[in-house]
Amino acid sequence: MEQTLNYIEQNKARFLDELLELLKIASISADPAYNQDVLDCADKVAQYLTDAGADKVEVCDTEGYPIVYGEKILDPSLPTVLVYGHYDVQPPDPLDLWKKPPFEPYIEKTELHPEGAIFARGSADDKGQFFMHVKAFEAMIKTESLPCNVKFIIEGEEEVGSKSLEGFVKQHTEKLSCDCILISDTHIYSREQPTVTTGLRGLSYVEVEVQGPNRDLHSGLYGGAVPNPIHVLSRMVADLIDEDGKIKIDGFYDNVLEISSEDRLEMNRLKDNPEEFMQSIGLSGVEGEKGYTTLERTSIRPTLDCNGIWGGYIGEGAKTVIPSKAFAKISMRLVPYQTPEEITEKFTAYFEKIAPSNVKVKVTPHHGGMPYVLPSDTKEYLAAKKAMETAFGKEVLPYRSGGSIPITAMFEQVLKAKSVLMGFGLDSDAIHSPNEHYGLFNFYKGIESIPLFFANYAKG
Amino acid sequence: MEQTLNYIEQNKARFLDELLELLKIASISADPAYNQDVLDCADKVAQYLTDAGADKVEVCDTEGYPIVYGEKILDPSLPTVLVYGHYDVQPPDPLDLWKKPPFEPYIEKTELHPEGAIFARGSADDKGQFFMHVKAFEAMIKTESLPCNVKFIIEGEEEVGSKSLEGFVKQHTEKLSCDCILISDTHIYSREQPTVTTGLRGLSYVEVEVQGPNRDLHSGLYGGAVPNPIHVLSRMVADLIDEDGKIKIDGFYDNVLEISSEDRLEMNRLKDNPEEFMQSIGLSGVEGEKGYTTLERTSIRPTLDCNGIWGGYIGEGAKTVIPSKAFAKISMRLVPYQTPEEITEKFTAYFEKIAPSNVKVKVTPHHGGMPYVLPSDTKEYLAAKKAMETAFGKEVLPYRSGGSIPITAMFEQVLKAKSVLMGFGLDSDAIHSPNEHYGLFNFYKGIESIPLFFANYAKG
Repeated sequence: MEQTLNYIEQNKARFLDELLELLKIASISADPAYNQDVLDCADKVAQYLTDAGADKVEVCDTEGYPIVYGEKILDPSLPTVLVYGHYDVQPPDPLDLWKKPPFEPYIEKTELHPEGAIFARGSADDKGQFFMHVKAFEAMIKTESLPCNVKFIIEGEEEVGSKSLEGFVKQHTEKLSCDCILISDTHIYSREQPTVTTGLRGLSYVEVEVQGPNRDLHSGLYGGAVPNPIHVLSRMVADLIDEDGKIKIDGFYDNVLEISSEDRLEMNRLKDNPEEFMQSIGLSGVEGEKGYTTLERTSIRPTLDCNGIWGGYIGEGAKTVIPSKAFAKISMRLVPYQTPEEITEKFTAYFEKIAPSNVKVKVTPHHGGMPYVLPSDTKEYLAAKKAMETAFGKEVLPYRSGGSIPITAMFEQVLKAKSVLMGFGLDSDAIHSPNEHYGLFNFYKGIESIPLFFANYAKG
Repeated sequence: MEQTLNYIEQNKARFLDELLELLKIASISADPAYNQDVLDCADKVAQYLTDAGADKVEVCDTEGYPIVYGEKILDPSLPTVLVYGHYDVQPPDPLDLWKKPPFEPYIEKTELHPEGAIFARGSADDKGQFFMHVKAFEAMIKTESLPCNVKFIIEGEEEVGSKSLEGFVKQHTEKLSCDCILISDTHIYSREQPTVTTGLRGLSYVEVEVQGPNRDLHSGLYGGAVPNPIHVLSRMVADLIDEDGKIKIDGFYDNVLEISSEDRLEMNRLKDNPEEFMQSIGLSGVEGEKGYTTLERTSIRPTLDCNGIWGGYIGEGAKTVIPSKAFAKISMRLVPYQTPEEITEKFTAYFEKIAPSNVKVKVTPHHGGMPYVLPSDTKEYLAAKKAMETAFGKEVLPYRSGGSIPITAMFEQVLKAKSVLMGFGLDSDAIHSPNEHYGLFNFYKGIESIPLFFANYAKG
């Protein structure tokens, strides 16, 4: 192990340079305008895997963006770890809030990152994180210390719902067979309090449309006499959550797993300083479901958020129009045992129920995903906890995250293997926001932790 | 008069060709990208005025877009009519709903326009309408039948609040002195029921901003625990109008002129077929302030409409973001004796009052305008009524419109003259919508009516 860690130490600068190259590619899967960039990024990932020492590297076509595969099989009798990551990134808008262009990575020190952080779209989510695995793998290969078999699948559609992944995994169960899945696409609680993510929320994402008149109207000539779809949509959005922060959709909480009060006490050991939390995002007050802490609201409770709304004239200046249509994108985070199908169906029924009779509404489901839990007595959790405790020199706690990585549930179902969510980001990395960044400390700590995980896991 | 009407008949085709040239210029005053087009349009209008026979034609600089001036003074002792119009147009978006590009005019027959209609942005509002005056003027000049003095001011900022006009008029009260102002920027009730517009609503237009967190957040990690500005704005927009269609702003109705029940009966003689009204805009039901007819809601009652709303991710696909800010554009139509200053102030106070304490709100006033009324016993009204009765061969009724031409109140105050709103469009012209059009019947009927107005008005 010492040799491996030495190799990492000696090659740190090059590892960083290679990551910066990867971050220059605008692999925005949500926007068709970046189609070629996403494809170029897949090729680059394949090249990096080959250079690191992987065999059978392949850019596998799918109906959407390709999945990059690579492997190193030492001995079929050894355990096999499947590393998953994604090379696609979120759209960077609003662009004008970035200090520098999102695909021109640069290093800058911050209060939380005295060693510097890498600023770029995708630096933490997920290029900077899956790339740690490529480099840790290289270190183990070069120092001949890889203790088990490794397979990589790095996909290009995570930010748009991993549409092709399930089909791919189902088609290649033999090729992808493994004992566990290792994923770095989450964050630790803090540098002082490292954590392994043991729970993820599921997701139901829908787009809604409200149509009033069949064409845009002049608000002077028609205003006050027809249903304005912006007002109708506003009333309907307002009608999704009540004053206690409860979601009003009929039956929404029917299948929610209620956590015991002991478990709630245990998880609240991690409790934030609420003042600090509010300050970090410039708020004078938080809000949410009555009867729960902020930590609980963002982890063990299901939520609903409008992620986008638009209608009418949104350019510069003034236009006096009543638009024909108004739109919103709405996502719901799910907890065990809600399912995206169930919740999408209940949302649609409720949204149609609350629509006034003189408008037309349409609900279009986008992607969804199941919630996921990794019990803290599993071999996988313990290997990760121990690895991080060695690397950080601190006690590691389990952590339930509010985010979603819907594929963990799918992996469990199809590959019959648990996923270990050993992420190294920070909550403050601004991963879906302008000025996304990833700490150099976190990047290197991650590369160190990975060989330790492999060693622990191989030992059993 | 016969000679003049003959001249018009003989030159119809050329008049139309010249208008089509004017409609090809994308003079969108709201969008700085079209700056040069607006300036080019001003030059074109000046050229047309000169060609028609106007003297002292001038493209007058202002702080915004230029005002085109021209005149024909026959004899200072004769009455003077000031013709007002605007050469700027509304933005054409959403572009994809236009059957053909908005600045490539074409003629097409429709059910309401068996002679054909001119389709183009600005065809009815207001290029096609002010251009009738240029051509009617040409006909009177060429047939030596002009019975009084004429002055033209054609501005380029009507669609963005006529910001420079008031200063210009105040600076040139001598040059612009007149006995009445003649404006064609409204519509008749129908071809079978021609009308002169005797009332206009005022306008208060504001833009609002709601800020929650100080940066965009990941909805998985923060969702359910922070104020989402889209939800807050939706609740606030929903809270502007109550279930009876009454505007909830404190003191909003304080200065509203209540119309007598006799006058309400008289104005409802124009009553639409509600079925037809709903069908024309594809609605299964209308709504609005309780206790008033659709006609009243759109004319004698003040209204509030959200003209645009936006926030979060509005591109293709899905993005799970809680935006830092959400925005809306909101306009209120005013009736005598509300004033835009009063209403903007009351709106701001109310909006700030209903904002939850954990968000920041900002209200930015855009342009406003006073409501206007032209009594039906004035010389100006009667000259217009008679002119149109001759041209159309039908009884002409007075009509209160829901739209706003804020400058009419300003003209009255500064120039001490009444404005006559002798417009020839139809309600169905889609003037702020895709596929704006103006009937050829209306265009030519307007050109005929104008010399008749001049004759009636000069006779007194």
